[in-house]
Order: sequence, then structure tokens, then C-alpha cells
Amino acid sequence: MTYCCAMRLKDGLVFISDTRTNAGVDHISVFRKLYTYGVEGERFITIQTSGNLATTQAVIGHLKNQLDLKVEPNLYSVNSMFEMAELVGHTLKRTIADVTTDQQEQSNYYCSILLGGQIKGEDMQLYNIYPQGNFINATSDTPFFQIGESKYGKPILDRALKFDTPLSEALRCGLISFDSTLRSNVSVGLPLDALIYQADSFHVPVGKRIYEEDPYFSNISKLWSETLRKGLNSLEIPTDDYWQ
Amino acid sequence: MTYCCAMRLKDGLVFISDTRTNAGVDHISVFRKLYTYGVEGERFITIQTSGNLATTQAVIGHLKNQLDLKVEPNLYSVNSMFEMAELVGHTLKRTIADVTTDQQEQSNYYCSILLGGQIKGEDMQLYNIYPQGNFINATSDTPFFQIGESKYGKPILDRALKFDTPLSEALRCGLISFDSTLRSNVSVGLPLDALIYQADSFHVPVGKRIYEEDPYFSNISKLWSETLRKGLNSLEIPTDDYWQ
Repeated sequence: MTYCCAMRLKDGLVFISDTRTNAGVDHISVFRKLYTYGVEGERFITIQTSGNLATTQAVIGHLKNQLDLKVEPNLYSVNSMFEMAELVGHTLKRTIADVTTDQQEQSNYYCSILLGGQIKGEDMQLYNIYPQGNFINATSDTPFFQIGESKYGKPILDRALKFDTPLSEALRCGLISFDSTLRSNVSVGLPLDALIYQADSFHVPVGKRIYEEDPYFSNISKLWSETLRKGLNSLEIPTDDYWQ
Repeated sequence: MTYCCAMRLKDGLVFISDTRTNAGVDHISVFRKLYTYGVEGERFITIQTSGNLATTQAVIGHLKNQLDLKVEPNLYSVNSMFEMAELVGHTLKRTIADVTTDQQEQSNYYCSILLGGQIKGEDMQLYNIYPQGNFINATSDTPFFQIGESKYGKPILDRALKFDTPLSEALRCGLISFDSTLRSNVSVGLPLDALIYQADSFHVPVGKRIYEEDPYFSNISKLWSETLRKGLNSLEIPTDDYWQ
């Protein structure tokens, strides 16, 4: 399983992915699911993947191959983020069709992709790309997308994340969303990959890998547990009259 | 969709169900998903259902019909909670088979059932019964089961609910679990049905229907939102050095 979250906010883009893959509980590995590309000063691109590992690696392989061999169109030649979403969507759809054309069997090879970035002269964009190759676009009303094991970590994002949330606070909120998911589903695992892109910087950041012993993450995880426990205990207990 | 949660704790049993059913977003109704039965002083039974509404109503119909016509075995004639779980499981499996024997098509008619109760001379039991008719039993290590839209509300139960949690506090924790689910999935809706059974009472409680305007529930929902917002804001914000 996988959990990836991406946010398109006023001040920039925030991406967080876990790194656990499993083929049965006795075959667990660490694989990167967050990929960055870019041309310094001109375009910044991040891709996050969830689903069949062979499919996600083939899609990333095709996109890289297009870049290396300068096959047109490629991530660096498309004129807009919309064209890029189409390119990634087509690549994904074709990759699945290469395995099988049987529609029912195809679902075994599904993968979902988040694509975020910015090309000079355009606004930042964030797309959620489906295995069918089509996609939706984040807006200021719905500033985040999740793929993979999304439900455990959704309530805190629903409550706390707004389009104008500052980037550092959005990262903090995202990490708490991951903390809830890590606790409730063992198939989502550390380390995490986190990356923040500042709007209009056209700079490709290195990103941060967050390991179990990361002092910041382990500290906010611990404090968040206490917040929930104390917060729950501070709520009035229903009286016997209430429920009898 | 549906969310039902049941707990088997040291002091008794706690059940909470929502009441929203939907056949498409333009066909939303209120249906009870929590049913109680019992013989005062001898046995107490609660059944919660999630899944295809025709299947759940047919199962409840068969069980009631068996009682009314004194068909053996029935909920009041079985000798143990284990036998009762078998009876409910067989009834569920047969109900689905009555619609279709095609295994793949059967999944359209699936329903899951939580069965909790106590028969004089026995401990309380709580079973999670699958559409295949088999079931698992709650233990002191795993004192709660959920069916339906379970993920949004699981983190708080994972963190806060223990076998020796007092019943009123367990109800509070369960209601917060429902609050998270109600906010993240519109297909789970108020009113809620809540019921607490005190161990060894062999009394069938009336239960509580919790509407939107319920002062206790709306108050703890509001305070819980504040707890989360304030708790998140009180966590240290990651510095630029952390993520750059």
C-alpha cells in the first residue's frame, strides 16, 4: 500500500509520500514514490505514484526515457502543465494496455498519479491522474489530493488545510495526516519523502527524507497523541440519563 | 453507505450506528441499522447491519419471522451466543444465495453484520459476521469492530479505546469516531442510534437516538474541532532549515 498527499496552496506546492511497498505482508520493501524533475529557472515537476509497482516504475521509466532520448513530446518539451498531464495520462494508460487489453484484468495493474508543478509564464498546477488516463485539477476550494491509503489521514486535512495556509504549517498538517495513517495501517511506512516548492521560484528543491528517528517528526507525533488523549478526556462524559 | 461500531468492554457492550442509506446521491433515506432483541432477565441481543439494504432487511425479516412463527432454531431458542452467530451467519449466506448463486454477482448483494449480546450463564460476546456466513469474535486485545465506512473513525478508537475503558467514556470516544466520519463522508449521516448494555444486567435498553440538534453531541463535536485546531496550531512549525 501507499499514501501520497499533495497540496496546491497560495504560496506553493507541498508533496509528501511514504516509501513502503508490499507484495504480501512477508515481502515489504522501501521504494521511492516521489520523483522530481525540472529545468532550473524554467519548470518544476513532481510526480507521486500509488498502485502496482511494475506499472508505476514503467511509467516513470517511459517518461525518463523520453527525456534521455529527446523523444517528443516529453516532460521538458510540453508547453503547459495541462499538456504534461495529458502526456503522463497517456503514458499511464498505454503502460497498462501493454500488460493486458482485458478491461477486467487491467484493474490488477492500476496505478494513480499525482502530478504537480509550474512552467514559467503559467500558474502552478496539481493534477490527480487516473489509470484511465483522464485527470482532475486541484482548485482553491479543494487544495489537496490524496492517493493510496487516504482515509485515515483525510479528517485532519479536511478540517485544517485551507488554500492560504502557509507552506510550513501545511507541511506540519500533512505530517500529522501521515502520522494517523502510519498508526492505523502497517502497509504505509516510514521513511517519508517531503518536498516543498515555493511559487514562482522555478527552483527544484532537494526535498527531505524523514526517518523514524527524525527529531521533529517523532516530537510532533508524540505531542499529537497527547493532544488527542487529553482533548478526548477533557470532553464532558455523557451522563447515565443521556443514554439510558 | 453506513458506519456501525460495536465494543465489547469489561463493563458491557456499546453500539453506535448511523441511519443513512443511499442508492445514488439523489436517493438518500433514513433507515435504522441497529436492532435489539431480548428476553428480560435471560438474554440480550443487538444486531447492526451494513451493505445492501434489501439483503440486510431480508436477514432481519427472516430472523423476526423465525421468532414470530417459533421456527427452530431462532434468536431466543439457541443455547449460546456462538450458536446465535452461526444462525445469523447461515441466514445471511442463504439470503444472498436466494438472489443469485453466481459468486461474482453475489458481491453486489453483500452485507456485513455485527452481533453482540449475552445469554444468562455465559459471558458477553461480540461477533463480526461476513457475507460468507463465517465470523470472528472480539477479544480483550481487540475490543471493537467496525463495519461500513470504518477508516475515518478508526484512528481515535485505535488510540483511545481499551478493554477496561468505562462505558460512558467508550460512548464518548465512539461518538468522536462518528463525528470524524460524518465530516469526511456525506454518505454517513445523522441521526445516530446508540445503545449501551451493562454486563450481566440481562436488560434490553431502549437506546438513544441522537439527532443533529442533540446538545451533548453537538457540543462535543464543536469542542473536538477546537481541540484538533488548537492542538495542531500548538505544534512547533518546521523551520525552513528542516525542509530545505
